[in-house]
Amino acid sequence: MMKSITIRLSGILVLLFSANSPVYSKQAAEETIPDKADLVEEYRTDAERLIDAALADSSAFERLAYMGDTFGPRFSGTQNLEDAIDWMLEEMRSDGLQNVRAEEVMVPRWVRGRETLTLMEPRIGAMSILGLGGSVGTSPLGITAEVLVVRNFDELEKRADEAVGKIVLFNNDVWRGYDTTYRRNGAIRGAQVGAVAILIRSVGPASMYTPHTGTSNYDENVAKIPKAAVTTEDADMMQRMQNRGQKIIVRLNMDAVTLPDVPSRNVLAEIVGREFPDEVIVLGGHIDSWDVGQGVMDDGGGVIAAWQAVLLMKKLGLRPRRTVRVVAWTNEENGSRGATGYRDAHAEEIDNHILGIESDGGVFKPSGFGFTGGDEAFDLIVEIARLLEGIEASTIRRGGGGADIAPLMREGMPGMGLSVDGTEYFWYHHTNADTLDKLDPHEMNLCTAAMAVMAYVVADMEQRLPR
Amino acid sequence: MMKSITIRLSGILVLLFSANSPVYSKQAAEETIPDKADLVEEYRTDAERLIDAALADSSAFERLAYMGDTFGPRFSGTQNLEDAIDWMLEEMRSDGLQNVRAEEVMVPRWVRGRETLTLMEPRIGAMSILGLGGSVGTSPLGITAEVLVVRNFDELEKRADEAVGKIVLFNNDVWRGYDTTYRRNGAIRGAQVGAVAILIRSVGPASMYTPHTGTSNYDENVAKIPKAAVTTEDADMMQRMQNRGQKIIVRLNMDAVTLPDVPSRNVLAEIVGREFPDEVIVLGGHIDSWDVGQGVMDDGGGVIAAWQAVLLMKKLGLRPRRTVRVVAWTNEENGSRGATGYRDAHAEEIDNHILGIESDGGVFKPSGFGFTGGDEAFDLIVEIARLLEGIEASTIRRGGGGADIAPLMREGMPGMGLSVDGTEYFWYHHTNADTLDKLDPHEMNLCTAAMAVMAYVVADMEQRLPR
Repeated sequence: MMKSITIRLSGILVLLFSANSPVYSKQAAEETIPDKADLVEEYRTDAERLIDAALADSSAFERLAYMGDTFGPRFSGTQNLEDAIDWMLEEMRSDGLQNVRAEEVMVPRWVRGRETLTLMEPRIGAMSILGLGGSVGTSPLGITAEVLVVRNFDELEKRADEAVGKIVLFNNDVWRGYDTTYRRNGAIRGAQVGAVAILIRSVGPASMYTPHTGTSNYDENVAKIPKAAVTTEDADMMQRMQNRGQKIIVRLNMDAVTLPDVPSRNVLAEIVGREFPDEVIVLGGHIDSWDVGQGVMDDGGGVIAAWQAVLLMKKLGLRPRRTVRVVAWTNEENGSRGATGYRDAHAEEIDNHILGIESDGGVFKPSGFGFTGGDEAFDLIVEIARLLEGIEASTIRRGGGGADIAPLMREGMPGMGLSVDGTEYFWYHHTNADTLDKLDPHEMNLCTAAMAVMAYVVADMEQRLPR
Repeated sequence: MMKSITIRLSGILVLLFSANSPVYSKQAAEETIPDKADLVEEYRTDAERLIDAALADSSAFERLAYMGDTFGPRFSGTQNLEDAIDWMLEEMRSDGLQNVRAEEVMVPRWVRGRETLTLMEPRIGAMSILGLGGSVGTSPLGITAEVLVVRNFDELEKRADEAVGKIVLFNNDVWRGYDTTYRRNGAIRGAQVGAVAILIRSVGPASMYTPHTGTSNYDENVAKIPKAAVTTEDADMMQRMQNRGQKIIVRLNMDAVTLPDVPSRNVLAEIVGREFPDEVIVLGGHIDSWDVGQGVMDDGGGVIAAWQAVLLMKKLGLRPRRTVRVVAWTNEENGSRGATGYRDAHAEEIDNHILGIESDGGVFKPSGFGFTGGDEAFDLIVEIARLLEGIEASTIRRGGGGADIAPLMREGMPGMGLSVDGTEYFWYHHTNADTLDKLDPHEMNLCTAAMAVMAYVVADMEQRLPR
């Protein structure tokens, strides 16, 4: 997963350096080819200051710990989330950031409630589940039915007759990277063949009996049936039971309910640009999380690292030409209403959104960024990333962004996502194990450093990043 | 953990081989020094047949899967355990093993019931727990109290005044190998300073929000207070909360209750020795497990591998001089009543128990055995283990045994425990993640092979293994 394509331009850059020898005037060189080496020279000192400051203390990690511990998971529609937003606004104001404000959006309110899955045959036993986001509940008596295990939709189609009245378990049991096919569409496909509920194998490559939740779809024209994730362990077990001819009967009880939308808020804070205040480099992540764990990997760390990146510019007195804006988007997980709300609220300014940077892969050791934009912009980003060679975060691959900046990118804004070591991300993603101990203060600081340097240079460089 | 001390005798053995050259008669060599090489030569063919047979199919693994899936966890006092015992007796009879029988022992019956831990301050949140074996319950209203986090008993003593009326969390947060100090004695020490309940950091080196249960003690002269394990994640969180001055209040509800003892059974099956039927090599593991997961690592795999080892001898027509007896001991986890019951039932035969072999570290890749016994016996075992060089399981370290053979060893029986790659054992030990997917059929077969060869040669060799 998150496979990086390393773009190596060092060979080309050597030629550019050679051409830029003393026999040419700087002016002449600029007229012939863009002298990209200048950015590195011009910003080397500022970049080193930002990196050194980022690595100097663990204050961002401590804020992340405080937020995760004190407010817990920050699910859309919960007081936890709004309390965390209030805290963040207050802290940003006390940081002295500019234009600290909240922008209201309406978000879904799905309430998990109590949920149990009980094995009734071949023996009685409790199984751990997490209902999938947006699922309908069962009646209070639950649904007791036989289980049909299928590995994929093809197998479901072949066994469609057997699925009627059953609970279908989608057990795509080979991890080929993050694949939400069955989580998203399992309930629709199951209902189409007459299943009364569906279960999915949790979407994760490793498990210690750890169910994973996540978003999922219904189709307005297809019956809405309850849907939940079982652990990979129980998916394997039910597959074995079916393979050896054991009849599997379970009882599924879910209190899940969708209530009317409620207000939540995006959080914004800025350093206003000294020369082009209307041109904005936006960076951030999402403040909301699933309703399990602490939501510090997904995505508390990303949003606080971005916040810290902007705060470090302020602390170092680095006020760039353009505005740097940190945004903590709300409701990324089950609706992206923060992302679309921001786009709508800032529709008039999108042309002046120069670049969006998102961190939503966990603040693990960063390797660089994935960038989506034009070739000229790409070359500039590659050049700026050379300032991150010292922290081994200089690799720019083509393609990248993030769910929260995606609506802006669809309107033409260049976007980039922080690339990190994703080895363990999907172990903990959307589970109760998304907790602070999975993260490392130094790695988080490296993420802060990478975003700070990238955002600052794009905000400050003379040339406006082209689209 | 489970650190092996490799005993390398190859240098010495080369000398023995050299001495045993054609210029000496075999008889002469035997009279001067015991010719250990003879055992290797004598049993090479049988050992290879046993190893080949062990590695040829996954029937033992399939039995383990069937048992784990069909009966689930096999906790003392449950029907699951007795059903698994019935199944095992039936299978052993159908295998054609001799003297298949059950020996009744009375075992404790502790029932976990429903248990919850709710964080009340600084926020509301559910925390995952597992009550410790034997714990008393709370009143139906639970215990609501402030938490005092201590890292060890020293810190508890220093803060004894603060512990009165609180729930003490023992958070020994550096993993230095399996350490049951706080699990076993935390409730006693907590009650002595006036705590109303105790929590422990789960005993495990890795966690995906995975609580671990296990045995624990009360002192008849000290108040019995409820005791449960929290995840390492929540232990870390509460430590951080306390460190930053946040008041922690939780509500602990546990229905746990200890009911009167009930009968369970040890399972025995044999190949009766052709020459010394009264001399017994006993091998096995425990059939019971904790009441979570499938109990296939701890210790379904061990007991089924031992069973398979004996079955392979039968299938290959290898009937040794002495009796080989596989025992599935009951109630190892919370009472060892199977172990002591066996010792008492066989008190008259203990002098003729030549060797005990136990597998209770998970049927991971084996490296050899740990042996407890006299020097002469140790040298013989080292020699026999050379037959396991081909499967890299020939390392014999001094010291070893198992909880189920410990009462026999205290009466003088030499004992040995299978040494395996213990990297992941304590990740899953006593948790819901002790499930089949954590094991590998080939590794289990290697365990079977190692036990089969060791048990067979000791049972068949002319010399009786000395004490």
